[in-house]
Amino acid sequence: MQVYLDNNATTMCDPQVVKLMTPYFSEFYGNPNSLHRFGTSVHPALSNAIDQVYTALNASDNDDIVFTSCATESNNWVLKSVFNDYIVNGDKDHIITTEVEHPSILSTCKWLEEEGVKVTYLPVNEQGVVEPHVVKSFITEKTALVSVMWASNETGAIFPIKKIGDICKEAGVLFHSDAVQAVGKIPVDLQSVNIDFVSMSAHKFHGPKGVGALYIKDSQALTPLLHGGEHMGGRRSGTLNVPLIVGMGKAIELATVNILDTMAKIRTKRDRLEDALSKISDTFVVGDRKNRTPNTILISIRGVEGESMLWDLNNGSIGASTGSACASEDLEANTVMLAIGADNELAHTGIRLSLSRFTTDVEIDYVISHFEKAVDRLRGISSSFAKQQPTAGGEVQECELH
Amino acid sequence: MQVYLDNNATTMCDPQVVKLMTPYFSEFYGNPNSLHRFGTSVHPALSNAIDQVYTALNASDNDDIVFTSCATESNNWVLKSVFNDYIVNGDKDHIITTEVEHPSILSTCKWLEEEGVKVTYLPVNEQGVVEPHVVKSFITEKTALVSVMWASNETGAIFPIKKIGDICKEAGVLFHSDAVQAVGKIPVDLQSVNIDFVSMSAHKFHGPKGVGALYIKDSQALTPLLHGGEHMGGRRSGTLNVPLIVGMGKAIELATVNILDTMAKIRTKRDRLEDALSKISDTFVVGDRKNRTPNTILISIRGVEGESMLWDLNNGSIGASTGSACASEDLEANTVMLAIGADNELAHTGIRLSLSRFTTDVEIDYVISHFEKAVDRLRGISSSFAKQQPTAGGEVQECELH
Repeated sequence: MQVYLDNNATTMCDPQVVKLMTPYFSEFYGNPNSLHRFGTSVHPALSNAIDQVYTALNASDNDDIVFTSCATESNNWVLKSVFNDYIVNGDKDHIITTEVEHPSILSTCKWLEEEGVKVTYLPVNEQGVVEPHVVKSFITEKTALVSVMWASNETGAIFPIKKIGDICKEAGVLFHSDAVQAVGKIPVDLQSVNIDFVSMSAHKFHGPKGVGALYIKDSQALTPLLHGGEHMGGRRSGTLNVPLIVGMGKAIELATVNILDTMAKIRTKRDRLEDALSKISDTFVVGDRKNRTPNTILISIRGVEGESMLWDLNNGSIGASTGSACASEDLEANTVMLAIGADNELAHTGIRLSLSRFTTDVEIDYVISHFEKAVDRLRGISSSFAKQQPTAGGEVQECELH
Repeated sequence: MQVYLDNNATTMCDPQVVKLMTPYFSEFYGNPNSLHRFGTSVHPALSNAIDQVYTALNASDNDDIVFTSCATESNNWVLKSVFNDYIVNGDKDHIITTEVEHPSILSTCKWLEEEGVKVTYLPVNEQGVVEPHVVKSFITEKTALVSVMWASNETGAIFPIKKIGDICKEAGVLFHSDAVQAVGKIPVDLQSVNIDFVSMSAHKFHGPKGVGALYIKDSQALTPLLHGGEHMGGRRSGTLNVPLIVGMGKAIELATVNILDTMAKIRTKRDRLEDALSKISDTFVVGDRKNRTPNTILISIRGVEGESMLWDLNNGSIGASTGSACASEDLEANTVMLAIGADNELAHTGIRLSLSRFTTDVEIDYVISHFEKAVDRLRGISSSFAKQQPTAGGEVQECELH
């Protein structure tokens, strides 16, 4: 048996999605901008995919959803074009974001600082989220943009996007969210929030890698990141990637059509896994599970290095992560755990388990069994861990990290 | 029968390529940056694809070939990052390009002009290419970059890249080429030219849409267009698009492994088609066929609007173009034909036919037959064309446009 519990890094492309997009590689391969039948024959599938994305997000016809190559592109686009349009060519000088964003936000912000932008990195509370009043307290008349993730890739914590959106609207500040960990995992209703820009990637919800989107409220102006021809109204150039856009449309439909049911099923498995792992002594799960995406657990096991645990899980054919896949080849402490106040030792012990709708109960049983043995084994050889008896009872140990 | 002669816009993804990349959607779907077996299991295929691209282009191990989402991204990256690194944060102020570049170069340059960059758009000669001495004459000590296409998407004309590269190197100016119409069509040997940056897209050589690359000589510094994690050494972030990269590797191998043979076969068909169409009176083929990519014909038919001809060809299930697909939905005159000196009337009559290795002799026969009838029909209803008898002989009519 092999068990994939790294769905926050990337997901299996749903075989239904692959089947649907395959004909667009070698049968219906025309460039949709071409006037001939090879081009126009792909229009119905393209329109259908666009409709699927608008429907899934409850976007308005007045809004633009522009296909990109991934959320990293969408995030770079928003930050760099707001920099160009409102800072270089405007009177703003300030961007607000959080300490726990994805590297595509944080690295871009670091670069913008080199270019002279003032960037505020907001801290998160012990639940791993930014509080709206904190956002409000840092907004000035020079603030061009607030960029806050919709849900954390590491902890699954869901951010108070509606409240932050209301604050930004009242202050007249643009608001962007990297929703890459929210779309397809929890309901994302773009009519219910005040938000200007939203980034997403299909491969996080069982669509193909290499396609994402940027939602742009009311089709407002934003300098393109990719200039060129008149594709997508001139907003993002490059030949339209028909197979992958068709795949993204189907994937978002499958992920959202019965999302409350799907969430409940995933949550049941996640909670069972979390309850079992939390019975192991000296383990700490980060964040209130009621406010997390239903598929995610970030658990610390005192005395067990995250990388050692990954290695042991991998030997049991279980795929997990110490945090963001973008940083998983290094051996740094988990930055989110540091941000929420974990000590350095504990921040090296985080293991992220992220389920999907394809995760089965049999797989959960297998992971529980293997995980317990792995902790025993690794604590047995740990120089720093004074082995303790498991605590009695089995209640979930709340995270107490400050 | 249907015949696709719009391979300069996009190509059919080779079924061998589709077959090879398909398992990487739903079977081997791990993020290659992950430490577990789901991630590491894709490393051999990824390494192989990278090797295939390096081999096909004769790149050195000291060079970087960075995967992007398409040549439009690669082109935007070079221009905008040279702007950032050498103009905003340097003492240069000038970029040289040509009047006939792809919109992803021209639109980006127009935008850079708004940002204060001086851009020189070089004219082409009657063969549709820029002459090296013209490039040399415009280089100043403030020139940061020369960007000249390797081959024209519209005429197929091959530009004197080696000579221009030598001039740039001597002058100490960076040199970039959009080689999207050259890679896979003619030999591109990156050891034989002095060049800093080369852009390409897989879907132009029977690979998938949504993946391309930027070649960077000697791995020299260039600010990323997409900041983020440590993917590809931090040069271009975003989860590596494994299926499409695997597809691009195979596609470039298939396109280049016997390229001289393949070119000869395509050229034979192209020349036969061109000879036949040139027998129609008052037709003009742009550019010396010896200096064109072997698959391309841009032909003008006096008295026949390009769009009318496209329509008629489309009714016969033949896919062609009036020029770049990126601009094919508008009814503008062909910009390259204007650039080489055609009058406005003639510039509205250009039809581009672009073959591929999948084009058959039977298809060529069918196109010749349909094309002749279409010209007769359209000239019969043309208000501007005084119908003439075909010229005797059948020799190719040279383009005489000034």
